[in-house]
Order: sequence, then C-alpha cells, then structure tokens
Amino acid sequence: MSSTAKYLSGDTAAINEFIDQFDIFLLDCDGVLWSGEHLFPGTVETLEMLRSRGKKVVFVTNNSTKSRAEYQKKLTSMGIPSNVEEIFGSAYSSAIYISRILKLPGPKNKVYVLGESGIETELKSEGIDFIGGTDPAYRRDFTPEDYTGIADGSLLDDNVGIVLAGLDFHVNYLKLSHGYHYLRRGAVFLATNLDSTLPNSHTFFPGAGSITIPLINMTGQQPTALGKPSQAMMDSIEGKFQFDRKRACMVGDRLNTDIQFGIEGKLGGTLAVLTGVSKKEEWEAEGAPTVPAYYVDKLSDLRG
Amino acid sequence: MSSTAKYLSGDTAAINEFIDQFDIFLLDCDGVLWSGEHLFPGTVETLEMLRSRGKKVVFVTNNSTKSRAEYQKKLTSMGIPSNVEEIFGSAYSSAIYISRILKLPGPKNKVYVLGESGIETELKSEGIDFIGGTDPAYRRDFTPEDYTGIADGSLLDDNVGIVLAGLDFHVNYLKLSHGYHYLRRGAVFLATNLDSTLPNSHTFFPGAGSITIPLINMTGQQPTALGKPSQAMMDSIEGKFQFDRKRACMVGDRLNTDIQFGIEGKLGGTLAVLTGVSKKEEWEAEGAPTVPAYYVDKLSDLRG
Repeated sequence: MSSTAKYLSGDTAAINEFIDQFDIFLLDCDGVLWSGEHLFPGTVETLEMLRSRGKKVVFVTNNSTKSRAEYQKKLTSMGIPSNVEEIFGSAYSSAIYISRILKLPGPKNKVYVLGESGIETELKSEGIDFIGGTDPAYRRDFTPEDYTGIADGSLLDDNVGIVLAGLDFHVNYLKLSHGYHYLRRGAVFLATNLDSTLPNSHTFFPGAGSITIPLINMTGQQPTALGKPSQAMMDSIEGKFQFDRKRACMVGDRLNTDIQFGIEGKLGGTLAVLTGVSKKEEWEAEGAPTVPAYYVDKLSDLRG
Repeated sequence: MSSTAKYLSGDTAAINEFIDQFDIFLLDCDGVLWSGEHLFPGTVETLEMLRSRGKKVVFVTNNSTKSRAEYQKKLTSMGIPSNVEEIFGSAYSSAIYISRILKLPGPKNKVYVLGESGIETELKSEGIDFIGGTDPAYRRDFTPEDYTGIADGSLLDDNVGIVLAGLDFHVNYLKLSHGYHYLRRGAVFLATNLDSTLPNSHTFFPGAGSITIPLINMTGQQPTALGKPSQAMMDSIEGKFQFDRKRACMVGDRLNTDIQFGIEGKLGGTLAVLTGVSKKEEWEAEGAPTVPAYYVDKLSDLRG
C-alpha cells in the first residue's frame, strides 16, 4: 500500500537488474507498443533485445473482435515480428475458459454470442458450438412477433447454456433481447472483458463493457469477465504457458487493468509505461489504490 | 418508516373516505388499467365513477415511445375514454423540462435524441430543435470513417447542447458513439426514464434505462431522469395541472417507481394495486423502504 514505483528510464544498471529478474514479459499492446496506427519508435528493437536475452514475450490484449491469427496480422502490419502462439486475447481466453474450465455437459452447452468474428473463430478453435455473433439473422430490426416468439421460447434455442458478451459493433435491440432471455433461463453469464471504452483516433468509443452493461442492468447479475484485470485470464495464461509467477512481469499503460492484473496475479513485477492512459500522478497520489513496482517513460527505455 | 398500508377492498366506508380526500388521481397505466393487451374488467366504470364524483384523472406513463396523441389512441383502442390533456408521458415531461425549466440559450440548445418518434413529436410540440431519433441516417453500420469523423468533430453538430436518451428499438453502435461524444463535449445529459426493463407478452424486454446505461457507464455521469420516480416529472405535472399536492393521490403497481414517486412528491396519498409487478409481501416486509398508504386487490375495487 505504501510502496512506491521505481523509475528506471536512463538508469542502465537498474534496468539490467530489472530484466534479469524475469523469464517472461506479459505485454499489453495499445498504449505500450503503439497508439492507434502509430508504432512507437524502438518497439521492435526492444522486443528483439528481450528475446535475445532469452525472455519469453506474450502479447496480452482485451481486444475480443480479433482472433489470435487476425491479431498477429495486425502485429505484422505494424512491423512487429510475432508468433500466433505468443498472442493471448480475451476471445481466446473466453474460449479456453468455456472448454477447459467451465466444461458444461451437453447438449445444453451452446454459447449465445454477442460479439464479432474474433470470438467465433476462437470458439471454433476449441470446438465450441455457438449461435448469434455475426449471423445476419440477428442483424435486423425488432418486430412485434419477436416479443411473443422470445416470450414463448419458440425463437430461442433450448441448448444455449452460456451467454458470452464482448465488443459488438452490430449490437441491437434484438440481440440484447435474446441475450437477456437466455440469462433469465439460467445461462452462465460471461464477458470477454468489461472495458467501458475502446481507444481509437486519439479518443474513445463504446467498449465491450458498454455492450454488456444493459444485460447486467436488466438481470442484476455480474458476468465472469475473461479479460484483464480478471484473474480468470491470468489462470488461462498460466495454464497455457506454464511459468513461475515470481519470474513474470506485466507491462502496461493502464493502472486499473494492466497493473492491477499483474498485482492481483501476484506476478514478480509490474512495469508501467507513460505512453498511454495512466499518468504517474495517479500512482504517486496519497493512498493510490494501484501502484506499479516500476515505471519508464516509454517501453524503448528498457534498451538502456 | 413504520407505517402500514391500509387495505380498502370490500370496505365501502373506507373507500368513500379515501376518495373524498382527493381532487386528483395520477394513474399509472400498465399493471393498473390493463396488462399488455388485456383490459382489466371494471377499469372504464371505475374511471367514470371517479370523474362523476368530480375527480380529475391524469394518466402518467414512463412510455417514451409514444406521444400523448399516440398514447390517447392506445387508451381509445383499449376502450378507455380520455382526453389528450389528461395524458402525461415521459417524452412530454422531457420536452417540458427542456423548454420551460432548462431553457438553454441558442444556438447551442439542439437536442441529440436516442429514441423513437414519441420523443420527436413532443419536442416538436414545444418547438425544440433536434437531430438523431428516427433519422434513417443513424440507422446504419458503423464504419472506420465514423471513428475519425466523430473524433475530429466533422460528423458532429456543434449546436447540440443536450443528449436526451429514451427507449430506442433501433439503438446501435453509431448512435451510442454520437451520444457519448456529445456528452464528452459538455452536453446536458437527460433520460426520459430509467426503467431497466419493458413489460411485454407477460415477460420483460430491454427498457429505456438499458439503452441509456452504456452512456452512464462510459461517461461516469448520471442523467437527469424525467420519468417516475424522478421528481422532475412531478414538478412538470404540477406545473401543468396546478393542484394541491395534499389533495392528490398516486395510483400504481410498482413500489420503486409509482409509489416512491408519490411519496417523494409528498402527495396526500398513494394507492397500490395488486394487478401488476409488486406484491404486498414487499411492503409488509420488516423495514420495507417503500410502503403505500393504501392498497386494493384491483383498481375496480374502488367502486365499492
């Protein structure tokens, strides 16, 4: 609680000591590697330096609209070499949670998806049956017949046992009504992540949490979230990569997602960068709830 | 706090004493006069009886999708004689609030509407300029150009000074993005009402509050709500009808909207009916937060 963040930029000895403590770096992307479409100078070289020193890097993102393969394409288009196995998104995290942790018995284990194709791709990769998502049948106006058909269940699928909500650029009244009624019928409530906003074009737009919140409001239930800072995501990452948490460091720009994610996950370290959302005044404030162990002005300062 | 609700059904003397206390009855509609498309027997006769005893009746509804004229058509179709001047909906309440209480100076007093035609009709009736609403230009998919155009303001109207959110069956990502950005630019945040759900077909669907809540979630701001139980609505009703609150009674089926509305408005009485949402066990429970002054099994019991 009374800890303070150690500033590393420009202090080569401290940087080397910092890097040597860890085997694996979990890296948030937007605000750390790039901002929007702008790659920060030195990002590629910093990742190369970490890899050349034998460190594993994992790209951890709450973006659920892209599958890992699609996210890798984005990394490539930004000029960042990566492997699809190094990418961990909230859609993948959700699929892993459903197939390997929740493991609902069939036939009532189908997923109703409120979200985009990234979620669908990851559910398919785990062999999970789903409806909704990008199906054009749900991208239409609500009609009076929908009231009765949803109320009497004739428009619903009795095998839906899970509602998974994420960022959906095609959210509408019909989709929300379906999601709500599956929850009323007892479906498990999951969310890829609960970020209220989505950064784009140097401002913000509705995030996954703002798609999910009508369902929270209507049902009075909270979903299990599979993105940062939810520890369900940390458990999934650890399950996949098998590492010693004391030798892992979370790197990010947001205190209440990235840094909190690392602290609650009891990782050996957390590193904040000042190229994104949070400012150092936030953790230097008296009684700040979340304080990173280290911080740098920018990720490329790790090159010393 | 330790008050108890007096039961009137079947007690003619008590009913007469109850009715004689009031000059005006504010009546919630769904759950009181009818349920869905089913008119409760005796509703018409009960309203006739109240009118024949010189009582004023006002139909008070949180439904913002219909204008007063449209709502009167609904009353007529249900077989209930009424006058458009007896109808007070949350869309009308919002228009009155904007034009007579808020009174923002031009030109920055345009309203961005997230809602249906009922809101538009009532804004027009008060001569209020607006954009959004049922305009087909907002009923489309979000595009990458929307990010930049909204971010740089080229797609926004600089004269919007108010965001008014209500039930919108055509809510989408584009409309939410516009609403959010007008609020970021300092627009006054209003909501017709905040009911999380809408009753239909003996179950529930997303209500106005579930359309508004993404904006609350993104901005961290609470709107001024113009529907029950908000006292802004009571002030509007009093402003229009000019009555002695001690001689007014609120009649409704929902404790946390109708009855609370009457109690907070310091009306002379509140009457709960058992034909809708709330059950008498709710106000008979130890420490119940909201207790009606009177209750009947059904409205028509007032005929004695």
